[in-house]
Amino acid sequence: MERHFHEQLRHLRHRLIVMGAAVENAIADSVKALSTPDDLIAGEVIGREDGINRMEMEIDDLCLMLLALHQPMAVDLRFITSAMKINNDLERMADHSVNIAQASLKISGSRFAGPLGMISEMAEIAQGMVRDSLQSFIDEDAEQAREVCSRDDRVDRLDDEVFKQMVTWINGDSNLMPAAMAAVLISKNLERIADLSTNIAEEVIFIVQARNIKHHQEDGEIVDMRSK
Amino acid sequence: MERHFHEQLRHLRHRLIVMGAAVENAIADSVKALSTPDDLIAGEVIGREDGINRMEMEIDDLCLMLLALHQPMAVDLRFITSAMKINNDLERMADHSVNIAQASLKISGSRFAGPLGMISEMAEIAQGMVRDSLQSFIDEDAEQAREVCSRDDRVDRLDDEVFKQMVTWINGDSNLMPAAMAAVLISKNLERIADLSTNIAEEVIFIVQARNIKHHQEDGEIVDMRSK
Repeated sequence: MERHFHEQLRHLRHRLIVMGAAVENAIADSVKALSTPDDLIAGEVIGREDGINRMEMEIDDLCLMLLALHQPMAVDLRFITSAMKINNDLERMADHSVNIAQASLKISGSRFAGPLGMISEMAEIAQGMVRDSLQSFIDEDAEQAREVCSRDDRVDRLDDEVFKQMVTWINGDSNLMPAAMAAVLISKNLERIADLSTNIAEEVIFIVQARNIKHHQEDGEIVDMRSK
Repeated sequence: MERHFHEQLRHLRHRLIVMGAAVENAIADSVKALSTPDDLIAGEVIGREDGINRMEMEIDDLCLMLLALHQPMAVDLRFITSAMKINNDLERMADHSVNIAQASLKISGSRFAGPLGMISEMAEIAQGMVRDSLQSFIDEDAEQAREVCSRDDRVDRLDDEVFKQMVTWINGDSNLMPAAMAAVLISKNLERIADLSTNIAEEVIFIVQARNIKHHQEDGEIVDMRSK
């Protein structure tokens, strides 16, 4: 039973990594769609949403099953409930990628006139944050998690910069408004993805603190596992 | 033990309602701060954030304790894990209220020049969505939950409208940019609060479906509780 439990925990970690990779691809492709003339890539991102939703449900059911059948205590319990929250966050990131892909379809035919350099930089940082926050969860590495949180500021600054630049850009020519609006919305979606990665990293810091508290305790009783 | 468990579940429901009321007040006050000349109300919203964060931790610990000590099955298990997700969503709504209060401090001294009518309508709808989504969770009322989801469209439309109006407004006078930016950011925060309430309502629909499935089953074994 105990061995079986640890195999299933390994399976859970593996499924989260697969889910995270799918989300990373969705982010990358949704932004790639902005600079491609046809709707192929945007359509693909939207088409893959169902699969990601199914992954979320599967991971959620796996967590419920682990909770119901194995009645884990303390840190294992926290690990599984955190996995449920992280799973939820990953699915929301996929939603934001779909929003970006839909914005890309709206401007389809005409070249994206927004600040593609800044948008691409935001997307790259966000992808790295998704990957590394998830890896910090798997490795229970609080130091890596803190480093992920620190990258959020750059994304926030870029998001502000996109907004300011677009407002200046449309000044005097309201025909540019739809393109500017698309850029601002895309930027906001990337900013939300970075925020959700920060949530994951913060969750990791909790778990590691809990493990440390447990480590210094004589017995295995439930303790207040949060010292935020 | 069984009776104790149901008392603790009642306590959990009560704590969520108290948390929801605190979040509702934070939303109302953050928007009220926009039309008051001093910084008192905005400061209060920001000052109450710590208390809401503590409530979140307390509810989270209560859920973990219920999971660890009572090993609930099927629908009770789903109820508690859903409570953890909803708790998380409520805390994020409080964060959005703090963002609004901070935006209000930035424009402090000068009257808020944004479309206060639309912003106030968004805030009112969002507050109602928070209250009713939480109530639908307590009552396990899928019909009410569906009705809450349907209100999200109006908030999305108002958010678009604020954006368009602000872009038109600043056209030709870039001095208006900071005020327009504040209005757009406040609107986006309210839109996110409505979105998070929709998440809660969707979670309720899951739970009620699960209870119906259980109701039609001969035994109490774990079933796939999602049919989204």
